[in-house]
Amino acid sequence: MHFKIALEEGFALPSSLAQNSPIGFTPANASPEEHLSTNLLDIHGHRLRQMDENGVELMILSLNSAGCQGLSDQTAAETLSSSANDYLEDQVMKNPKRFAAFAALSMHDPKQAADELTRCMTKKKGFVGALLNDFQSSGPNGNTMLFYDHPRYDVFWQAAADLRAPVYIHPRTPTPLINEQMWKDRPWLNLSVLGFANRVNMHLLAIITAGVLDRFPDLKLVIGHMGEHIPFEMYRLDHKLDRARFPNMKMRKDKLIRDYFGEQVFITTSGHFSTPALVCSISEIGSKSCMFSIDYPFESIPNACVWYDEIQLNQHDLVDIGRNNCLRLFPKLMQEPHNLSIKSAWDCGIGGLRNGETTYGLFNKSFNHRLMKQ
Amino acid sequence: MHFKIALEEGFALPSSLAQNSPIGFTPANASPEEHLSTNLLDIHGHRLRQMDENGVELMILSLNSAGCQGLSDQTAAETLSSSANDYLEDQVMKNPKRFAAFAALSMHDPKQAADELTRCMTKKKGFVGALLNDFQSSGPNGNTMLFYDHPRYDVFWQAAADLRAPVYIHPRTPTPLINEQMWKDRPWLNLSVLGFANRVNMHLLAIITAGVLDRFPDLKLVIGHMGEHIPFEMYRLDHKLDRARFPNMKMRKDKLIRDYFGEQVFITTSGHFSTPALVCSISEIGSKSCMFSIDYPFESIPNACVWYDEIQLNQHDLVDIGRNNCLRLFPKLMQEPHNLSIKSAWDCGIGGLRNGETTYGLFNKSFNHRLMKQ
Amino acid sequence: MHFKIALEEGFALPSSLAQNSPIGFTPANASPEEHLSTNLLDIHGHRLRQMDENGVELMILSLNSAGCQGLSDQTAAETLSSSANDYLEDQVMKNPKRFAAFAALSMHDPKQAADELTRCMTKKKGFVGALLNDFQSSGPNGNTMLFYDHPRYDVFWQAAADLRAPVYIHPRTPTPLINEQMWKDRPWLNLSVLGFANRVNMHLLAIITAGVLDRFPDLKLVIGHMGEHIPFEMYRLDHKLDRARFPNMKMRKDKLIRDYFGEQVFITTSGHFSTPALVCSISEIGSKSCMFSIDYPFESIPNACVWYDEIQLNQHDLVDIGRNNCLRLFPKLMQEPHNLSIKSAWDCGIGGLRNGETTYGLFNKSFNHRLMKQ
Amino acid sequence: MHFKIALEEGFALPSSLAQNSPIGFTPANASPEEHLSTNLLDIHGHRLRQMDENGVELMILSLNSAGCQGLSDQTAAETLSSSANDYLEDQVMKNPKRFAAFAALSMHDPKQAADELTRCMTKKKGFVGALLNDFQSSGPNGNTMLFYDHPRYDVFWQAAADLRAPVYIHPRTPTPLINEQMWKDRPWLNLSVLGFANRVNMHLLAIITAGVLDRFPDLKLVIGHMGEHIPFEMYRLDHKLDRARFPNMKMRKDKLIRDYFGEQVFITTSGHFSTPALVCSISEIGSKSCMFSIDYPFESIPNACVWYDEIQLNQHDLVDIGRNNCLRLFPKLMQEPHNLSIKSAWDCGIGGLRNGETTYGLFNKSFNHRLMKQ
Repeated sequence: MHFKIALEEGFALPSSLAQNSPIGFTPANASPEEHLSTNLLDIHGHRLRQMDENGVELMILSLNSAGCQGLSDQTAAETLSSSANDYLEDQVMKNPKRFAAFAALSMHDPKQAADELTRCMTKKKGFVGALLNDFQSSGPNGNTMLFYDHPRYDVFWQAAADLRAPVYIHPRTPTPLINEQMWKDRPWLNLSVLGFANRVNMHLLAIITAGVLDRFPDLKLVIGHMGEHIPFEMYRLDHKLDRARFPNMKMRKDKLIRDYFGEQVFITTSGHFSTPALVCSISEIGSKSCMFSIDYPFESIPNACVWYDEIQLNQHDLVDIGRNNCLRLFPKLMQEPHNLSIKSAWDCGIGGLRNGETTYGLFNKSFNHRLMKQ
Repeated sequence: MHFKIALEEGFALPSSLAQNSPIGFTPANASPEEHLSTNLLDIHGHRLRQMDENGVELMILSLNSAGCQGLSDQTAAETLSSSANDYLEDQVMKNPKRFAAFAALSMHDPKQAADELTRCMTKKKGFVGALLNDFQSSGPNGNTMLFYDHPRYDVFWQAAADLRAPVYIHPRTPTPLINEQMWKDRPWLNLSVLGFANRVNMHLLAIITAGVLDRFPDLKLVIGHMGEHIPFEMYRLDHKLDRARFPNMKMRKDKLIRDYFGEQVFITTSGHFSTPALVCSISEIGSKSCMFSIDYPFESIPNACVWYDEIQLNQHDLVDIGRNNCLRLFPKLMQEPHNLSIKSAWDCGIGGLRNGETTYGLFNKSFNHRLMKQ
Repeated sequence: MHFKIALEEGFALPSSLAQNSPIGFTPANASPEEHLSTNLLDIHGHRLRQMDENGVELMILSLNSAGCQGLSDQTAAETLSSSANDYLEDQVMKNPKRFAAFAALSMHDPKQAADELTRCMTKKKGFVGALLNDFQSSGPNGNTMLFYDHPRYDVFWQAAADLRAPVYIHPRTPTPLINEQMWKDRPWLNLSVLGFANRVNMHLLAIITAGVLDRFPDLKLVIGHMGEHIPFEMYRLDHKLDRARFPNMKMRKDKLIRDYFGEQVFITTSGHFSTPALVCSISEIGSKSCMFSIDYPFESIPNACVWYDEIQLNQHDLVDIGRNNCLRLFPKLMQEPHNLSIKSAWDCGIGGLRNGETTYGLFNKSFNHRLMKQ
Repeated sequence: MHFKIALEEGFALPSSLAQNSPIGFTPANASPEEHLSTNLLDIHGHRLRQMDENGVELMILSLNSAGCQGLSDQTAAETLSSSANDYLEDQVMKNPKRFAAFAALSMHDPKQAADELTRCMTKKKGFVGALLNDFQSSGPNGNTMLFYDHPRYDVFWQAAADLRAPVYIHPRTPTPLINEQMWKDRPWLNLSVLGFANRVNMHLLAIITAGVLDRFPDLKLVIGHMGEHIPFEMYRLDHKLDRARFPNMKMRKDKLIRDYFGEQVFITTSGHFSTPALVCSISEIGSKSCMFSIDYPFESIPNACVWYDEIQLNQHDLVDIGRNNCLRLFPKLMQEPHNLSIKSAWDCGIGGLRNGETTYGLFNKSFNHRLMKQ
C-alpha cells in the first residue's frame, strides 16, 4: 500500500541520547545502519529512504522513551520537553510533507504540561498531538510514580481536548521499585515482551475509569502494540468491571469500556505484526479504531510494511487502517504545512490491475501478493 | 439492536398469489400465522407486530419472487408491474415510517422498465429502488431467458443510475429447461439450498463483466443471502478472470471484481444467519458492503434478529450493518415520507448499561447476551 | 513448510493431450516452461524441481480434466482409463517417494469402473484413490450427463468404500447443452471463475443427499477449490434442506450436511489461496477437514506455496492441513512404495529458531515471515 | 453441548472460608443461591443441579484462591494443603462420575509440595493434577513472593512430570506491596479486570523461559481466562524475546514460546466468554490447546454454557474444546473412579436432527440455535 502513515516512530536528541541510551538493544553483529543510536538520531537519511522504499508517506515523530517521563527532576524534565519540541519542530519543518510531531511533555506539573502542549499546538508548526511515556518518574529517589488519572491532571486533559490534540500513551522502562521481586531476575519479560503492555493497559484503564473521557468528550487517546492486550480482553474487562462493588469509580455508570473505542480511544499496530491479532481487534473494536504504525527504529520498516501490504483484507479497511483513520484523528495533518489528503484504496495501489498487467492468474507468480507494488 | 432495517422482505398481491404460489413451502403442522400465503399478504398485522417485538424499524418490501420475471407474456408482466407498484405504494403510505418499496419491473422491454422505474421513483411515494428476480422469462413456451448484461439493457441501467435507484438482484425458481438433466430429480437442491445462489452469482458477474458498472458509475447493485457465495470466492474470482484469454470482455481491464464491492455492489444477510460467513464477508468485502436483512416470510423474523442481536462484534460494524449502511445506500429513506435518520450504536441499544443495570458481571446471568434489550 | 503434500495435481497422456487440449490457457508471452502442454506432460523435470524448491514432498497425480468423463463413447472412455492408469503407474513407480496416483475411471458402466478401481488399488502400485471429473458425458451426441447419485452407481461406491479408496470430485468443462442460454456468450464465467464450482457443489450434494455416504460409511469424498463454496454456505445448506417438503430424499433424516465433513467429506485449497476463505473453512468444517493442494499446472507451485508458508496460523493446523490430514485420509501413502510418515510441525520447519538464528526480533528483517525457511 | 467438562471450578473449606473471604463479591440484592460463600461451600446441591441443567458432566474442583498460596506461614499453608486435599477427596468420592480434584499445595517447600502431590496422585482417589494460585506468599510480613521458575522448584516440577499431573496456574489477589503506587486507589483494576492476568501471564512466561518445560518434557501447564492475554500476544512475545540480549535465559534457544502450546501448555475459557477471543486463540494456538471452563462460582454456569452451546463453530472443535481435549490432558479421568470416555460430536448432541425434528429451516424459530438441545 502506498501512502501509509505511521505514528509511533521514535527519534532521539543528540544531547539526550546518553540519557535514553538504547545500549544493549543493538546486536553485536549489527551493521552501522542497524545501530539503534544511529537510527534514532537520523531522520532525513536512512529513515526517509526506507519510507520511500516501503510506501510510508508520513511519520509522526516522538522523543525516544522514556523521554521526559524518565526524569524525576522537574526542571530537567521541563527543560528536556521544550528543547525536544524546539528541535523536533526544526526537523519536521525541513520536510513537513513527510514528517509531523508529537509534543514531548513533562508531567510533573499538569498546568505546565498544558502550557507546553498549547505552545506546540498553537505557536509551533508541525505538531498534531502529544505522546506520553506511561507514568512520570518523580520524588527524590526517582521511585515515585505519577499517574494521569489523578484529578489534578484534569487541567492537562482539558487543554488536550480544547486543542484537539490526541494523546498517545506509550510504554516506558520501569523504575527499579516496580515489581522488584517479580522481575529483577527476569529482565527479558519486563520490557516489550509483556511488562510494557501490562503496565500501559492498566494506566489507560485507570484514566478511563477515572472518568477523564467523560469529563472531556473531545479528548482522544491512542495506544500502540495492537492495543496492549485490550482488544482481546474487551469482553472480560467489561464483564468484570463491577460497578456495584466500586461505587466511587467515576466513569459513567451507563457506559462500557468498549463504548469508548473508535470514539475516544484508538490503537496502532506498532510492533505487533500479527494478522490474527489484527483480525481479532477489528472484530472487537472495529477497523475505525485501528491505525497502522511501525515503532521504528525498534522495529524494521520493511518488516512492518511487508506484513501490512500482504494482508488479505478488504481494500476499505486496509486504506482506513493504513492511512485515512489517522487523518481523521489528526485533522491538522490535512492542513499546512503537511497538506495530506484522504485517499482512496485505488490511489494507494490497493486492488486494481495496472501497469499493463492485464494478464494475471494462471501464470502470474506474484498474484497472491495481492496488493500491487507500483 | 433497536432500529434495524431489513431490505429483502416479500409481500404478495392478493390477485397474483396463485400465480406465485408458495404451496409446498408451508409444513403441514404450521399454525395459521405460519402459512406463507397469510404472511405474504399481511403487512400491517402480524408482520408489524414481529417488527416491533424484534427491533426492526423499517422493511423495504418487494413483490414475491418470481414476480414479473416469471411472466413470459410481456403484457401480463407489464400489467403486473404497474398494478403491484400501485398496490405497494398504497400499503407503504399507510405507514411510511415503517415500510418502503422496491419497484417490481417487467424486463421484457428495457425502455418500458426504465419508464416504470422512473414513474415509481419520481411520481409515486415510498419507492427507493427496484428488485429484479434474476432473469426474465420470455418466448412462446416461456423457456427463453433474458439476462440484463445485454447491451440493450443499458437504457434501463442508465435510468437506475440517474434516478439513484439501487437494484436488488434476487433469485427465482428456474424455468424447466435449466439444467434439466442435472436437477429434475433433485428438486431439493435446485432452489434455496444451492441453485438460487449458483444462478444469481453468475447473473451478477455477467452484469459486472459486461462493463455495466463501468458505464454507469452511479449504479448500485445489491445481492442477498450473504452475497450468493461471492465474498468467500473473491480471491478466486479475480485470480481466474483471465483478461488475456477474453479480450472482448468489456469490464475495465484495470479493475478487479473486488474493487466494486462497497462502492457499487452490496450484500445482505437474508436467509444466511451464520456468524462465520458474516465474519468472512467483512474480511473480504468490508463491513461497509454488508447490510442486515431477513427474507421474511421465507425466514423467521425472530430467528434473524436473535442471531443478529447476539453476534459478538464491535458496535460500529453492528450499527452500520444493521441500519446505517442501508440509509447511506438509499438516502431517500432519510427524506419524506420515511424520515429515518443515521443513529449511533448507543441510540440502537448496542453497548452501554442502562435501566438501572449498573451491576453486572459476576452474577448477571444475561450478560453474555451482550447487546442490551431495553 | 517442508514436506507438504498436494493432491489435485494434473498430468496429461502424450497420446490424449490433443483431446484434452489446454490451448488458449497459455498466454502468448509465456515462456516454454509456462506452456500448459509442456507442464502437463512433464512429471520428473520442471515439476519435480519446483516441488524441491517449494517444500512439496509428494504429489498425487491425476489425468487432466475432463479425462474419461469427457468421452461420450464408452469404449473410448474405458480404453483411456486403463491406458492412463498403466501409464501413470509407470511414472509414479519411477519415483514413488515423490508421486502417487489417482485412478482415472470411465463412469459409463459402474461395474466396470469398480473393476478398474479394484485393479488399480490391488494389482497396481502407487494408487491411493480415484479422481472423477464431475459428470460422465454420454449419449450419441455427447450431451447426456450421467450423475453418480443414481442408485446404479452403488456398485461403484461399494467398491471404493471396500477398497478404502477416497474419491476426488473434480470439475470439468461443460457440454454445450448446459445453461446454453446463460453462458454461451460469457465463457469467462463458465469455467474456473464460477461455473466449475457451481456444478461440482451441486453434484457433491446430490451424492450426499441421495444417501450414498449413509449406505457406505467407509466411503470418503474430496472436493477442491476450498470446498467449491460449501464451507461458506454450511449454515444455509442445512437450514434450507427441508426434509418435510422432500420426504423421498434418501439422506438420513437425523443428519446435517455439516455432519459429514471431517468424517467422510474433505476439501483442498487448490486454486483458492485466500487466507480469509481458509479461516472461514476452518471455522465451519474444522481443520481436520482441510488439506493443502495446488492445482498444478493450472496454478503456480510457488504461488500456492508462498501463500501457504506465510499464513499466520498455529503450527498444529498448518502441519495437519499441509501434510498429516492427507496421510490420515490416504493411509496407503504410509506404506510401500511411498513410505511417508506423520511429521511434527518441528519436523516440517514450522516454528522454532534454527541454523544459528538465535537472535531475532529487533533487527531481523525476515521475522515476519514467521515460518522458517531452512 | 452435552457432556461438557469444566476445570477451573472453585470450592471452599468450611473451616477456611473466612480466610478466603469473598465478602464484597456478592451484590446486596443477591438471592441466597447467589451468595458466593454458599456456592463455594456447596458441591452436591445447587452446583450439581446447574451442571445437570446445562450439560456439564464433570467439574475438576480446586480450593478457592488464594488457598495455600495466601498463607505466608509455612506450617499453616501445609496444614491447609493436606486438610483441603483430604476434604476434597471425600467430596469427590461421593460422586466421582461428576467431580474430580486438583490438589491444593503449599509452595513454601518444593519437596513437601512434591510429596503432597505424590500422596494425592498415588494414595488418594479422584486427583488428576494440581492447581497453584500464582506466587506463594512468604516472609514475616507476608510480602515476600515465591515464584516457581526458581531452580529449587525443579524437584516439584519433576514430580508433577513423573506423576503425569498437569498443573493449573491460577491468579490470586496481590499482596499489598505489589504495585502499591499503581493500584492502591484503583482496586477495580487490580483483580480480575486486568491485574490477575497481567501477573499470571508473567509468572507463566517466567517458568517457560527458565527452561522448566525443556527440563521436564512430560510436564503440562494450564492457564485460564482464555490464556491470560497470551494467545493474542503470541507473535509479539516471540518477536521480542531477544535471545542475544539475554544469553543466560535458559529456555531452549531453538524454540519459540508458541511451540509449547498444544504440547505442554493449554488454556481454558474460564470467565472470558468471548467468541472473537476464542476464534483468535484457535488461530494462534490451535483448538487442541483450548478447553472449556467456567470459573464457578465467580461466573454463572448458565452464562458460560449458553455462550458455549451457541457458538457457531464446527463440531470437531466444539467437542474437543468442550470435552475431549480435557480427557486427553487428564487421562486419569478415563480411569477409575471417574470412567469418562471420549465422545463424538454426535454423542454430545452437536449437529444432527433428532427427536422427530425432521422438519426444520423455513419455520423453525429455534434453528439458529444450531446446537440441538435434547
